[in-house]
Parts: sequence; C-alpha cells; structure tokens
Amino acid sequence: MSAQHDQHFRAVENLIYEWARAIDEDRVEAIAALLLPDGRYTVQSRFNHDRGLPMAIIDARSAAQLRDRIKSMRVANIYEPHHYRHILSGVQIVGEADGVLQVRSNYLVVRTMSLDGDMAIFSTGQCHDEVLITPEGPRFKKRLFLYDSRIIETLLVIPL
Amino acid sequence: MSAQHDQHFRAVENLIYEWARAIDEDRVEAIAALLLPDGRYTVQSRFNHDRGLPMAIIDARSAAQLRDRIKSMRVANIYEPHHYRHILSGVQIVGEADGVLQVRSNYLVVRTMSLDGDMAIFSTGQCHDEVLITPEGPRFKKRLFLYDSRIIETLLVIPL
Amino acid sequence: MSAQHDQHFRAVENLIYEWARAIDEDRVEAIAALLLPDGRYTVQSRFNHDRGLPMAIIDARSAAQLRDRIKSMRVANIYEPHHYRHILSGVQIVGEADGVLQVRSNYLVVRTMSLDGDMAIFSTGQCHDEVLITPEGPRFKKRLFLYDSRIIETLLVIPL
Repeated sequence: MSAQHDQHFRAVENLIYEWARAIDEDRVEAIAALLLPDGRYTVQSRFNHDRGLPMAIIDARSAAQLRDRIKSMRVANIYEPHHYRHILSGVQIVGEADGVLQVRSNYLVVRTMSLDGDMAIFSTGQCHDEVLITPEGPRFKKRLFLYDSRIIETLLVIPL
Repeated sequence: MSAQHDQHFRAVENLIYEWARAIDEDRVEAIAALLLPDGRYTVQSRFNHDRGLPMAIIDARSAAQLRDRIKSMRVANIYEPHHYRHILSGVQIVGEADGVLQVRSNYLVVRTMSLDGDMAIFSTGQCHDEVLITPEGPRFKKRLFLYDSRIIETLLVIPL
Repeated sequence: MSAQHDQHFRAVENLIYEWARAIDEDRVEAIAALLLPDGRYTVQSRFNHDRGLPMAIIDARSAAQLRDRIKSMRVANIYEPHHYRHILSGVQIVGEADGVLQVRSNYLVVRTMSLDGDMAIFSTGQCHDEVLITPEGPRFKKRLFLYDSRIIETLLVIPL
C-alpha cells in the first residue's frame, strides 16, 4: 500500500459501509448520492464477467438511472416485503489510475422476509469499485457487484 | 467523519471486536467489564424498535444485571451446548453528543451445536451503540442489538 | 493496543485480506508467498485444539509443502468445481513476543458450486496467526484455522 492509499483507506471503507447502511436502513434513495452523476452501477454474475459476456441483471449508467430504479421499487414493483443485512469484508485499494482508486471488497447479503421472518443468504460476491476523491468526499465512479452463484432468484427488487 | 471520530475509530472498532471475541471464546463474563457500571444492554427486534414498542428479549440495565444473567447461564440454565461465531462489519461513528459517540455496525452470528456440529445463521441485525472514551479506554454506555427476523428461537442463552 | 500494534494494524489486516482474496479469485498459488519459507499452515477443529489433541485436517510445515498441496489440487484431485467467498471480521493484535505479532480474527467461508450454483456456509471459525514484519511487508509465520463444527465434509480441496 502506498502512502496515498493509506491516507484514503478509511474514507473509502466508510463510503462502502455507508452505501450498505443506507440500504439496510431502508434509506435506499441515499445511495444515488454516493454515485457520481455519470457513474455506473452494475450487478453481474462472476460467470459472465470471467468470460467477458456483457449480460448483467442491473446496469445503471448514471445516478439518475439508479434513482429511477429505486423509484420504481417504491411505487411500481409488487413484491413480498423483505430487507437486507450487508456483511462486508476485505476492503483493499489495489491500484490507482488517473486519480481513480481501484477497490475490492467481499459482500454477503442476508435477506429477511418481513412476514414470516425467514432468513437466508441471498447473495455473496465481490465488489470491483472505482472511487474518486472529490472535495465533498469519496464517491463511486463505478460499482460492479459480481455475484458468485449462477442461480438468480427472480426477485432482485432492492439494489445490492 | 470529523478528526475526533477518526482519532477514536480504531479504539471503538476494537471494543466491538473485543466483546464478540470474549463471547466466541467462551469468556462471556468479560463482556460485563466492557459495559459501564450503569450501562444498558438490550436485545430487541427491529420490528418493535421501528414502531417504538418497548418489548425486548433481553434488557439489562446495569453491568451487574448483565453479570447476573451470565451467571444464570453458567449455573442455572439447562440447554444443549453450543457456541457462537460473530461476523461483524460496517462499524461507523455516526454522531456525538455530550462526549458520547453514536456507533453503528452490522452483525451476523452463526451458531454451532457442540454435539452434532450443526451450523446455522442464528441472528443478523444492527447494533446501535453509545460509547464513552474513559481513561481506561472506550466503554459501552449502551449496546442495543436490533435483530432482523421476527422469528425468535426460544433458545437465547448466551448473550449476543 | 500499544502504539507498535497500532502502527502495524492496517498492514496485518491487509495481509489477512490478501490471503483470502487470492483464494477467492482462484489465484491460490499466491498464498504460499505470504507464508514464511519455514512457516506453518494448519486447519484444525476447535474441539481438538481445546483439548490439546494433535489431529488436524491440513498441517503444512513449510511454504513448499503448502505449494505442493496447491499443485495437487490443480493437477491430481478430482472434485466438483466450486469456489469460496471469505467474509472476515474482528482482526485484533492480541500480543507480541520476540518481534512476532499474535493476531486473532474470525472467518466465514461460503462455498458456491459452479454447476448448480448451490451456496452454503462451508466453514466458520477463528484464525490464530503469528505475523512477522519483514522488509517486504508482513508475512505469516503461522496460520492456524480453528473451525467451529465437528462435522467435516470430505471435501476440503481448496485451502481455507
């Protein structure tokens, strides 16, 4: 780790925690403010990513598009109520190019159904993030969630 | 994060880890020393907390009361032997009032039964902690475990 | 935590994350370089360790022996393809003797089968590590994985 990485480490780790906490506390709208206006948020299988296949289950190409998706979750989608719990680990700054930090971390999301209380591991995987340090603090230029399992539930309403 | 938060962050994170490790290593008595004498330790459902309902499954109003509960676990309770593994993540200092730090973190506890080795996710949720920096190091003024699922097993012998 | 511990904490935490990421990204060979040439890597049940019983399911007494084991995984073992996701937490430096840091952390490994996508908690437990700060950075002198459950699947091909 360079001194530069060291200096930003805590702020980057906190950014990643902040995203997760906003979702877990049902303040999902707040994540859009952590993505740069022209940032990108993608959820893709590890299988497809390893083979360079483009198919992804979410691919928002701006903060506005992400905001749209969250709005549809709030007003349009019909689904059984549930919430997430993010367990994150292993945040590492693995590189830097043109002032953008390359960051890796692991995630595990437990989903709890509100009605019957059923808990299950919903998704695990790795995040490939690009983070820019702005005067307002670090922001995501890119968030790529690579999930481990090829089995996808039809239900991915709440963003990861 | 203010500089004040930054300064205390590692010590607070370590306090949270210390609590969990004491339980996982079956040194449960040690957690009472991490709670201020007039501190409070509560385990409550997210459901009740969100609605301002007071019911909690554990609510110890002092370190002495917590010590009592641990003693009853050791000498009075009859239960199938098991132990916990705490996986913690996302420690954030989210505020400060009157020298007390407001802290959030996520937890996941896996329970392993000693006899048949059965492992299961026992509980997930969020901690709302209040931490005071004392000359002996940080101590909990308040630990509130908010668990995600409305389904409670009858068996909550070992504190979270 | 002494100032010495504080100074090395991030580097030690990063070493632990690096080991896990190498395995999760299927660069398993890379972990051997994180172990000192005469280092030791052991996977043992908590049950046996608590009783001083010597039996372990992996016990590599040098980096070369670990390299051997990884090679046999690549070229000799026949097994259903799968990969791991490590979720780590609670890294603490708990002592120091003769320049070697004593480190504790918790782990949870989710295993995903490549063919049918089945995910399960494969192992949880605690790491007892001894870490030496070398001019090239921190390295493991000893990695001891103590797993919680007495039930072992026959399949432990990929190192933890």
